[in-house]
Amino acid sequence: MRRIKLVVAYDGTRYCGWQVQPNGLSVQEVLNKALSDLFKTPVTTIGASRTDAGVHALGNVAVFDTEARMPAGRIAFALNTYLPEDIRIQGSEEVPLQFHPRFTETVKTYEYRILNRTFADPCRRLTSTFWYGKLDLEAMKKAAALLEGTHDFKSLATANPAVTDTVRTIYKTSLWKEDDMIRFQITGNGFLYNMVRIIVGTLMEIGKGTWPTEYMETLLEARDRTKAGPTARPEGLTLLWIRYPEWGF
Amino acid sequence: MRRIKLVVAYDGTRYCGWQVQPNGLSVQEVLNKALSDLFKTPVTTIGASRTDAGVHALGNVAVFDTEARMPAGRIAFALNTYLPEDIRIQGSEEVPLQFHPRFTETVKTYEYRILNRTFADPCRRLTSTFWYGKLDLEAMKKAAALLEGTHDFKSLATANPAVTDTVRTIYKTSLWKEDDMIRFQITGNGFLYNMVRIIVGTLMEIGKGTWPTEYMETLLEARDRTKAGPTARPEGLTLLWIRYPEWGF
Repeated sequence: MRRIKLVVAYDGTRYCGWQVQPNGLSVQEVLNKALSDLFKTPVTTIGASRTDAGVHALGNVAVFDTEARMPAGRIAFALNTYLPEDIRIQGSEEVPLQFHPRFTETVKTYEYRILNRTFADPCRRLTSTFWYGKLDLEAMKKAAALLEGTHDFKSLATANPAVTDTVRTIYKTSLWKEDDMIRFQITGNGFLYNMVRIIVGTLMEIGKGTWPTEYMETLLEARDRTKAGPTARPEGLTLLWIRYPEWGF
Repeated sequence: MRRIKLVVAYDGTRYCGWQVQPNGLSVQEVLNKALSDLFKTPVTTIGASRTDAGVHALGNVAVFDTEARMPAGRIAFALNTYLPEDIRIQGSEEVPLQFHPRFTETVKTYEYRILNRTFADPCRRLTSTFWYGKLDLEAMKKAAALLEGTHDFKSLATANPAVTDTVRTIYKTSLWKEDDMIRFQITGNGFLYNMVRIIVGTLMEIGKGTWPTEYMETLLEARDRTKAGPTARPEGLTLLWIRYPEWGF
């Protein structure tokens, strides 16, 4: 028995999210089916990150166990021929059987993209959110930096009864504009439900001048979701990559 | 009566192209319908460039005539509320009634994007073509530069009985790689049917080493389509903008 780690990229537009759900097609369901077809035996994956409907990934992680002898690195190429064009494996490798992609120390990086110009661009509508007005990038950058470190992020998450510990560590944030696209990247050891999207909704309010930069500190102290900005739209969000420092990959 | 010029952007994915056709939905059809709804009277546009199925535009041009009194600059904003998300007007202005977007000296710029990495990226599959192998960018750049100037482009176009003059002038080409995306831009006074896509198909063969850089000169002299590379896929192509030097816009 070998455990294989997959790096999974997908366009989340037509999926109800990563996780198998009774209503709607999930990325995991399509992936399980493709693996089962490839190996001609039922295969079930364990995913690292349960991205929401419409959210994209360049590097989500999933593992599965197999008795098949195909060289681990070849699986990515073989599996892609069984997948629809909106899901593409980016790599496959053997990992120890003890490795679990979720119950393990992780470092995740997300990117959120805001298209900031007078008119929307149809070709980028599914991979960014659109805002025509002025945004104070310096204020947004400073507010984002206030999130770095270990904080209680209760104000910046949708309540989830299954999660009582709302303390997380943000290692790094960066925000810059490339031509007409604002790109915001955030790296941390874990993210609460809707956390990145609520952070972006809050940063946009700060960018518009609704709140001063320092409001981000007040907000963290408040531990009150109603004091933050709205949840930014899903299509602007991409899970870029996940690292497992304990495992060296 | 006023003549209004529209700059039209669209994601060509679900359209049969710009021009109204008996089978399939065209961009022009949807645009005419939106204008007719906005002005509550039948409106027909004249388009500058008849892009093919799957080809995108950031700046195609169309004109229409109207008796309506809405300020010209406001039309773009009003019209967008009547259009689907995959078509977005980028600007509107009044132009002289004599201005015709097609029977006029034009300068057009197209961009073709080739995603060049080991694995395809689902989020960019509809706005680029994918090639996993090595491409010699210097050879491609030099071959592209050989197209600059006035040449007979018969070898680099799909035959069109309605067009007998196959001489065109290319003012500028540029080709560079940004991260994993190769971007090729070409500016000229006109392009024959499928010309940019056949140029790209040929540049890719040169990049792969099938032909040397100088083959581009041999090809122009041959005036024979069968000697060129394949027609590159439509989704990599975007019509960036159109200028009318005689009219100063």
